[in-house]
Amino acid sequence: MASTKFRTAITTCTVATAAFFGGKYYERHNLPHRVNLSYYPALPVFGTVEAASLIPSETTVAKPNSSRISQIMKYGFPSLDSVISYNDFVISYDKRNRVAHWVFEHLTEESVRKNDEVDRSKCNFVEDKSIHPYFRSYNSDYKRSGYDRGHLAAAGNHKTCQKHVEETFYLSNMAPQVGKGFNRDSWNRLEKYVRKLTRTYPNVYCCTGPLYLPQREHNGKMYVRYEVIGASHVAVPTHFYKIVVGETKDGNLEMESYVMPNTAIDDNVPLTSFQVAPDVVERAAGLLFFDNVAKNRIHKINGKKT
Amino acid sequence: MASTKFRTAITTCTVATAAFFGGKYYERHNLPHRVNLSYYPALPVFGTVEAASLIPSETTVAKPNSSRISQIMKYGFPSLDSVISYNDFVISYDKRNRVAHWVFEHLTEESVRKNDEVDRSKCNFVEDKSIHPYFRSYNSDYKRSGYDRGHLAAAGNHKTCQKHVEETFYLSNMAPQVGKGFNRDSWNRLEKYVRKLTRTYPNVYCCTGPLYLPQREHNGKMYVRYEVIGASHVAVPTHFYKIVVGETKDGNLEMESYVMPNTAIDDNVPLTSFQVAPDVVERAAGLLFFDNVAKNRIHKINGKKT
Repeated sequence: MASTKFRTAITTCTVATAAFFGGKYYERHNLPHRVNLSYYPALPVFGTVEAASLIPSETTVAKPNSSRISQIMKYGFPSLDSVISYNDFVISYDKRNRVAHWVFEHLTEESVRKNDEVDRSKCNFVEDKSIHPYFRSYNSDYKRSGYDRGHLAAAGNHKTCQKHVEETFYLSNMAPQVGKGFNRDSWNRLEKYVRKLTRTYPNVYCCTGPLYLPQREHNGKMYVRYEVIGASHVAVPTHFYKIVVGETKDGNLEMESYVMPNTAIDDNVPLTSFQVAPDVVERAAGLLFFDNVAKNRIHKINGKKT
Repeated sequence: MASTKFRTAITTCTVATAAFFGGKYYERHNLPHRVNLSYYPALPVFGTVEAASLIPSETTVAKPNSSRISQIMKYGFPSLDSVISYNDFVISYDKRNRVAHWVFEHLTEESVRKNDEVDRSKCNFVEDKSIHPYFRSYNSDYKRSGYDRGHLAAAGNHKTCQKHVEETFYLSNMAPQVGKGFNRDSWNRLEKYVRKLTRTYPNVYCCTGPLYLPQREHNGKMYVRYEVIGASHVAVPTHFYKIVVGETKDGNLEMESYVMPNTAIDDNVPLTSFQVAPDVVERAAGLLFFDNVAKNRIHKINGKKT
């Protein structure tokens, strides 16, 4: 971004205000569409999205601790689109695809330790009322889709209290994931591996998100193609990425970067097979990860000395 | 967005700073990919993107007049992702698709009047150096793609001085458009129609952008599918939208909302056939247009009294 160009100052307050007032007048009109429908093969109908029901002013979510947020985001924001801070993780939400751009977590050995006071089975998947009704995903979108509601910030990473684990069940933290062979298997292996890194590093920073990668088709041209599910057209990512940074006691950083296809994967494929250079993910995701970190602080990338 | 949730304050300054420092260290490493390539049918290679060449600190673009920007954006920002302000229009850039999310213009009868001092033929399509090299589009991406570099903010809308029209030729203001039948024909008809609205309204506000609409495929499921061109994988939108608001002398607002498929269109199809309810575009684009406008100020939508 040019430092020499004027940039209108924007704050998340503006986002919140804008979204809050959204949808107040369109719904009243319900204009007949003077449309040649053949031109709109699939202009979304969104039958179940009740845009008339505005964002409630009350919510059960407590105001997150701002110093915790600074801790999670210590190494910078990958982007600034629709950022939502929860108590123990931070999301940037993609309103077009109804799936987060990225989810950021900070893990320590203590935060991922088994905690008998926290009961995952008491958690329910709930729509995120902080997101405008037009852009939310709903449980009904996932129903009969064949896809799991796959956590981006893993439930198992947020065990310090019941509230934290509950917040990982917001649908804003979910993406449609293949269940058997992926969400319940290889992706889970990767999540467990990241938790295990807290034994090596006092601090682990983890950024997770979807990718929509192009493929070459029979005509020789490249196409991005992904399914959308439910009345809200929730995007089914073709791949998921995880960029992990371990901070050593003396403040050095070691980075690992993974891309996994959203498909059943043989359990025997080692996780290292999914390592890719971080800039490959950055280009594909349209994001910059840990980019305000001084270059001489990253001592290893994907296990290799830099 | 919940007004009750904590939101980290973000400013475009952060974006600028973050992007500026981006790409400083990854390029040095060029790690061998320990990857089972079958899992990555098309992880982008981006051969021609030279990420090592950082954003230059000098640029030929003058600092836009902030009061002009406030005038253009009088009715609010549709979203706040990567906002770039030029002298006579404002863009929100989609770093993943390398095509803007939206482009906002303010037109008056004076600003669109024929001006012999402005010469469009002297303008060149140039890459936008205010965008990080990873996420820019390049002239080489369009070469032999079969698509026009289609203006989002139309060149013909910015005739008050040569600098203004030149700025519309930044590739950040372009999207791959079908040339014959669309960019040079029906889409141009729509652009001319919007200019003509300045004869009816003293102020015309125009927001233009791409859509990536899903279609039902043979298996009964819905898929978003769009081509990407060039080494940078610039997305070819399936449709384009234009949301126009005319402000009358007494401050009333009248809105028109169009969606056109990115395909050759018969010149005889009337523009009104492409009118759709504005919320249909909002849901599909993940944006809210003119949403901070008091509802009783919008007196007409698509020619019908509200």
